[in-house]
Amino acid sequence: MPNERVEAMYWIETPSGVADAAEAMADEQSSGTFVDVPGETNELRERHGATVERIEERGSTEQPSLPGSISPSNAQSPTYTQAEVVISYPLANIGASLPNLLTTVGGNLFELQELSGIRLVDVDVPDSLAREYPGPQFGIDRTREILDVWERPIIGTIIKPNVGLSPEETADRVETVVEAGVDFVKDDELLANPPYSPVEDRIVEVMSVVDAHRDRTGTEVMYACNITGDVDEMLELSDCITDAGGNCVMVSVNSVGLAGVRKLRRECDLPIHGHRNGWGGLSRCPQLGFDYGVFQKLYRLAGVDHLHVNGLRNKFAESNESVVASAQACQTPIVDEDDTAMPVFSSRQWAGQAHDTYEALGNTDLMYLAGGGILGHPDGPAAGVAHIRQGWDAALRGVPLEEYAQTCEELATAIEYYER
Amino acid sequence: MPNERVEAMYWIETPSGVADAAEAMADEQSSGTFVDVPGETNELRERHGATVERIEERGSTEQPSLPGSISPSNAQSPTYTQAEVVISYPLANIGASLPNLLTTVGGNLFELQELSGIRLVDVDVPDSLAREYPGPQFGIDRTREILDVWERPIIGTIIKPNVGLSPEETADRVETVVEAGVDFVKDDELLANPPYSPVEDRIVEVMSVVDAHRDRTGTEVMYACNITGDVDEMLELSDCITDAGGNCVMVSVNSVGLAGVRKLRRECDLPIHGHRNGWGGLSRCPQLGFDYGVFQKLYRLAGVDHLHVNGLRNKFAESNESVVASAQACQTPIVDEDDTAMPVFSSRQWAGQAHDTYEALGNTDLMYLAGGGILGHPDGPAAGVAHIRQGWDAALRGVPLEEYAQTCEELATAIEYYER
Repeated sequence: MPNERVEAMYWIETPSGVADAAEAMADEQSSGTFVDVPGETNELRERHGATVERIEERGSTEQPSLPGSISPSNAQSPTYTQAEVVISYPLANIGASLPNLLTTVGGNLFELQELSGIRLVDVDVPDSLAREYPGPQFGIDRTREILDVWERPIIGTIIKPNVGLSPEETADRVETVVEAGVDFVKDDELLANPPYSPVEDRIVEVMSVVDAHRDRTGTEVMYACNITGDVDEMLELSDCITDAGGNCVMVSVNSVGLAGVRKLRRECDLPIHGHRNGWGGLSRCPQLGFDYGVFQKLYRLAGVDHLHVNGLRNKFAESNESVVASAQACQTPIVDEDDTAMPVFSSRQWAGQAHDTYEALGNTDLMYLAGGGILGHPDGPAAGVAHIRQGWDAALRGVPLEEYAQTCEELATAIEYYER
Repeated sequence: MPNERVEAMYWIETPSGVADAAEAMADEQSSGTFVDVPGETNELRERHGATVERIEERGSTEQPSLPGSISPSNAQSPTYTQAEVVISYPLANIGASLPNLLTTVGGNLFELQELSGIRLVDVDVPDSLAREYPGPQFGIDRTREILDVWERPIIGTIIKPNVGLSPEETADRVETVVEAGVDFVKDDELLANPPYSPVEDRIVEVMSVVDAHRDRTGTEVMYACNITGDVDEMLELSDCITDAGGNCVMVSVNSVGLAGVRKLRRECDLPIHGHRNGWGGLSRCPQLGFDYGVFQKLYRLAGVDHLHVNGLRNKFAESNESVVASAQACQTPIVDEDDTAMPVFSSRQWAGQAHDTYEALGNTDLMYLAGGGILGHPDGPAAGVAHIRQGWDAALRGVPLEEYAQTCEELATAIEYYER
């Protein structure tokens, strides 16, 4: 640790000179106050100061993207300069601590009045930090091992209706999709541990379906049971799931936070399925907040095994390019090959996005979740699952979807139905 | 709980009709998928559906504030309508769970393409939830009791330089400000538990200063020791602080998250000083994210006793109006009088803001922290503390600052120095 540094890359916009703005950022995150203070020696600054490593200008604008910045030096023709800036911080300031890393690379920076735009684009992770946070326990490979699914995506669904079902009704729905052939089934993020469907009861009901299916067919199905909650509750519920023979827990990571996810990772021996709801609040203004690359790195280090990335042609505000970049980020090692997480594609998915998804990633190391794409298939859920398998078969073989559909009835019906 | 509902108020902007957009929000957060699903009965919708309670239009704009929304119906002269919308959710959907409350009232909503702007403005808290989350242990009154400071703000400072000091050097700095007369002293958010200043050592050194001062003068000083970290680390360090006779812990709430703060509140019998760093990332784009009123409510319910609100005429991007509203929010009961938190004013504070702060709040139930405002005073820290006390005396007596300074040397010097 003595000489290790954390490098963070930012997109910034500033009414000041870019170099001044970058220095203000480095000062704020190492020793900032508004007057000189006794004891802030050059030697201390040398040892603990943040350093501006690189600046690349990226154009300019005449209007500030965010409110609250200082007036530009030339008020007659105001210019807000945009730039990519890399700042490094001594890891010794932080220690091997993920929450304190976040405070240092983000923290007060978002409020600086020297900036009219600031987005955290990337953070690299020194070895000492990675050793303290070994990352996913299961990730891509061990998730595949549990399911014995290889060389194709893990195909899954979300239990629908997503709220309001009793544990028994939930198990009925699970039975339907398990018989239909899914590899994976999860709770909606809106269903965690409410009085009308306590996890304690739901897990027993659902696992009896999963167990019966395994006994009958030899095939494992993974059920991500949503245990989002306070720390004590999550630990209690994860024990309860382990006792019931469950094989996955789901957590809404932004609602729980870094420390809570990390604690669950330490105590729970099941894969952690990370739902990203709330992510839009951290990212949808392009001139503020976080790139997904940073977000996924923080929560992977905290321990999630799967992480939602939205899907191509989704029902939300995100572009396809952004979805692909997110999935690639999850599949990129931080320190070693074992620390990747499985990207989870979801939202308006059916076979129609298989080719583009495969082409963009060049691999099948992903979960492909369809709600309406499976349950809404005109010929029922089994046809729903079948048509997605067919779509991915076609993608893997390089056969166009329409052509492949000529010999696959489920796919042909789906094309007609979902493209209507 | 059976009939309790959570009401959330949003500011939204939409290219659709406002009523349609609000319905899309209610659907998404109760039973949203892109095709009808068997089993989603009217009876289930009735029992578990979210309801649009109120819509008030608030003008319109020709440009979308956020990217990714659908095209407006009238593409020739596009209009994005802005509105205040209230949506209610059955608490039975959520249970008495703060993380799941956040997923429900926020969650995927930030990504809806029916919206080109969405900000969560307020959330009310049903009784069942408040009973599960009793809020601050100490809040305003018990913090005052510990310090025996009444009818004026608690005056404090941040240890500077904020990074790089050894535990012994930190204690030396604390000795200086304690002798200067502060009520409260805290670590910077950039100093938590790094190898060069482990909390275990720092708390012993600092408390020996605080204890000696108490023995000598009978006066208590509160030291907020920053224990931000993973759950196990925070609990270990809070024990360590309790054992050393410490009287406050500090946490960067956004870096730790709701579940981590809640767990600390359960296990730790000391006041929790909540630092808000990272807040700008959740709030600085006015058309996205969270109002402070929601943020402070969530973390107060999780258990923080003090919460940073920035300060008037601060060095950051926030307006004075926003700072005042934040402080008022902290001082407003959620369920009962005991659940308020003490707002913490900080950033470029000296006596110069005392009158305006007092006038805006009408009370002194706050912490008033000065770094440079105390340590940078030309006549030293004792004069720094004295001038702030004098400034607040003047405010409380309704005497203008300049007039009061005629009989207060420290204040007169400060006015000359800080207004230069």
